[in-house]
Amino acid sequence: MKILLIGAAGKLGAAVHQTLAARGHQIVTVGRTSGDLRHDIADPAGTAALYEAAGPVDAVVSAAGDTPFKPLAQMAPGDYEAAFRGKVLSQVELVRQGLDHVAEGGSFTLISGVLADEPIVAGSAASLANGAVEAYVRAAAIEIAPRRVNAVSPTIFTESVADYGPYFPGMEPVDLARVVQAYVRSVEGAQTGQVYSVR
Amino acid sequence: MKILLIGAAGKLGAAVHQTLAARGHQIVTVGRTSGDLRHDIADPAGTAALYEAAGPVDAVVSAAGDTPFKPLAQMAPGDYEAAFRGKVLSQVELVRQGLDHVAEGGSFTLISGVLADEPIVAGSAASLANGAVEAYVRAAAIEIAPRRVNAVSPTIFTESVADYGPYFPGMEPVDLARVVQAYVRSVEGAQTGQVYSVR
Repeated sequence: MKILLIGAAGKLGAAVHQTLAARGHQIVTVGRTSGDLRHDIADPAGTAALYEAAGPVDAVVSAAGDTPFKPLAQMAPGDYEAAFRGKVLSQVELVRQGLDHVAEGGSFTLISGVLADEPIVAGSAASLANGAVEAYVRAAAIEIAPRRVNAVSPTIFTESVADYGPYFPGMEPVDLARVVQAYVRSVEGAQTGQVYSVR
Repeated sequence: MKILLIGAAGKLGAAVHQTLAARGHQIVTVGRTSGDLRHDIADPAGTAALYEAAGPVDAVVSAAGDTPFKPLAQMAPGDYEAAFRGKVLSQVELVRQGLDHVAEGGSFTLISGVLADEPIVAGSAASLANGAVEAYVRAAAIEIAPRRVNAVSPTIFTESVADYGPYFPGMEPVDLARVVQAYVRSVEGAQTGQVYSVR
């Protein structure tokens, strides 16, 4: 398959890239500052240009989404808006604007995360964004068939414990290799409207 | 208790008002165009003035949140933004800006809805908003203790079947009297971070 991979430069994106390429897929990488195509997903006005540049694809895979982390009392409305634009609207527009560019039976795989279910201090904007993405995936699935849409919802990566471990006390990390399998399952499988939790 | 009731003029708000007043609470009603205090929750800049006008309260109860309904392919980014501002950020700001105005042990009760779990055609923005509210409630709860926050997530009301029934095929409606009990449970109970599904 020809797969558009958003957020290819990140830890997760690089792992997804490696595994999907090893499985014989053609990967078109997208990043803010690197990759085959440049795109900032927080700017949905650029999504149309991204799809024009990419041409028809069989799957769109997202491994990108930023949200602010701050204690709740220090959050400003702009922080929640940034989470909405950076992780929710960005991925919603990948789906909506991608409908004419993804093959029938093709798929969108979005990124959510454990904080939708298991909150941490300072993570309310991330929780909000993840909950929005997961509910959106369930809703979009019934309107975009035969195209499909799923989300991957990982907990903290083993490979990120050195950086973020202290914020996830007692939360068992998962290897990126396991997270990547959820992407494979979404892209090569046939389900839709699913949230694949990797915990 | 002294309870600030947002969206008091709606079907749900009126039912919540009646029941909470009958249980001996003092209700301060808030609406866009009616009520003891006027406030448009889609304008978070007005939330501070609302709390100043209300004075200290024991609980904040929200029965207000608008989202656009359109087939997914017809949704514009502005529609999802409207859902975010009209039902998510509006309620998030009721909590954040209300922290200094709600008594210790007092509560916020937000409104979500069945579409977070069970989507309908044309409801992707509502699903997104409800999923965001529910995940936010779980996250906010761990940061605002001893204050509490819960959500009520009803399906279609029996009293609304005449208006909206065709959009909810085969979904069993619930009487407003049952939905209101979830508000009572949140306000008078002691739980936090809960999503009370009324189905």
